[in-house]
Amino acid sequence: MPADRIVECVPNFSEGRDPEVVKAIAAEVSGAGCKILDLSSDESHNRTVLTFAGTPERVEEAAFRAAKKALELIDMEKHSGEHPRIGATDVIPFVPISGVTMDDCVAMANRVGARIGNELGVPVYLYGKAATRPDRVRLPDIRRGEYEGLKAAIREDPDRRPDYGPAALHPRGGATAVGARPPLIAYNINLDTDDVKAARAIARMIRESSGGLPHVQAKGVYIESLKLAQVTMNLLDYKATPLSMVFRKVEEAALARGISIHSSEIIGLIPLDALLDVAIDRLKAGSFSKRQILDLININEE
Amino acid sequence: MPADRIVECVPNFSEGRDPEVVKAIAAEVSGAGCKILDLSSDESHNRTVLTFAGTPERVEEAAFRAAKKALELIDMEKHSGEHPRIGATDVIPFVPISGVTMDDCVAMANRVGARIGNELGVPVYLYGKAATRPDRVRLPDIRRGEYEGLKAAIREDPDRRPDYGPAALHPRGGATAVGARPPLIAYNINLDTDDVKAARAIARMIRESSGGLPHVQAKGVYIESLKLAQVTMNLLDYKATPLSMVFRKVEEAALARGISIHSSEIIGLIPLDALLDVAIDRLKAGSFSKRQILDLININEE
Repeated sequence: MPADRIVECVPNFSEGRDPEVVKAIAAEVSGAGCKILDLSSDESHNRTVLTFAGTPERVEEAAFRAAKKALELIDMEKHSGEHPRIGATDVIPFVPISGVTMDDCVAMANRVGARIGNELGVPVYLYGKAATRPDRVRLPDIRRGEYEGLKAAIREDPDRRPDYGPAALHPRGGATAVGARPPLIAYNINLDTDDVKAARAIARMIRESSGGLPHVQAKGVYIESLKLAQVTMNLLDYKATPLSMVFRKVEEAALARGISIHSSEIIGLIPLDALLDVAIDRLKAGSFSKRQILDLININEE
Repeated sequence: MPADRIVECVPNFSEGRDPEVVKAIAAEVSGAGCKILDLSSDESHNRTVLTFAGTPERVEEAAFRAAKKALELIDMEKHSGEHPRIGATDVIPFVPISGVTMDDCVAMANRVGARIGNELGVPVYLYGKAATRPDRVRLPDIRRGEYEGLKAAIREDPDRRPDYGPAALHPRGGATAVGARPPLIAYNINLDTDDVKAARAIARMIRESSGGLPHVQAKGVYIESLKLAQVTMNLLDYKATPLSMVFRKVEEAALARGISIHSSEIIGLIPLDALLDVAIDRLKAGSFSKRQILDLININEE
């Protein structure tokens, strides 16, 4: 079973209101032999997040075809929405899942970026692990000024020159950020209390922006359906800051306030490694190797 | 990736001293397209345990061919060793790993048992989950009297009639137990103490034979290389008695004695489900589904 090489791709498109446009873009991805895992459109953001997976070759082709279709169907001159954006295909991240490295995904970002730049005439900024300069690692830095502001900046400011394609926005498609990043884990911990202030205090303790754990975003919220306070999180790099560590820190911070953990929930998809880490950490079984997992034995390999 | 159907098979042969015989038997398994995961011969037991895996069809064929080869090369009239046994191929368990049910493995045991009985003339007792009567579930019951004692009993005692094949031992090969069982987990917990008495007391608390957890075998030992006391265990049915529960019980019993857990180790192979249970239990993430694991997505399925 582990013979498959799998890359995930989560492109964001600047259209969240017209289902026909979204359907046409998704059809390109399926047509290229990839499996669609999730498709979420948001009307107020006027934006669609498409999650798909496949072999590296197919994902690369699917990402290019989807960007080409978005360029045909979306006109940035007419686009408005709450979410910051620079182009019809706003961002394309490649995410290593199985049998591929981050470097493989950086190489994919470069190849797809070059095609989008050269064949479609859309300027491309490499970001995340594929970034060519420190001020292009984070998307907010690349999106500064957004589509409207980038029109002049890309021509005038040498620091805004794209990595691929022309130094001018495409007249309808704008620009696209293409990159590589680890899988993101959306994870919520429900506290055994309705005190949202406690959840907010714990969130402040653990999130990176307040000096907490690296690569962790967190906030405290109240969940009406559960009548419980929740620490809702994004783990942006589970290898650098493991799920087991995040859980333990939240548990400790809660216990220090006399609050226990009610439950937790993993939203959407999670890499197997992230869960295995939790099990190994719990069992203190540091000598364990993934090769010991019966189900993952490749019975076809010699 | 989860498209593969995998069965594990762990036959035991009554030969642990002649490597040529063992090699010839193992060659039958490889020849039938299965992957050998482990091969352990014990001289004092004069016995070999072969662990292999493959698709159900290949495992079935490999198990039969291995039994046939063992019948050619092993003569029970000349066999002696410490471990109780009834035949050249003493026991063949089929173990569901991935994409197959226990019922599938029971059906395999029946088909292979019928072939060994009819084509090789070796009487077969179905055991474990494949047992046809309560007094054949456990191997010690089937092995009562061993090869030597079974010679007369199989003819004279209606309760010892085999499920397949003749009601007489094969003159060289004896009889074979064929069955289905869950994967066995060999698991050791090292206590942060050199007090072997504490390990023995904890083992007594948790093992089934002393009234503890069902399907758990345990004893307390001293590990010279670590200078630590250890609770060494076999978990015979991890779905009935989960690894997370075993760990927690040992941890509680140790803490009650003021002893903490130093580390633990999984020996050999373990099903993925058993580890996921530990992670889910730790995170209190009861709503989690295996379908959320990115690596296990079948990218080829429609």
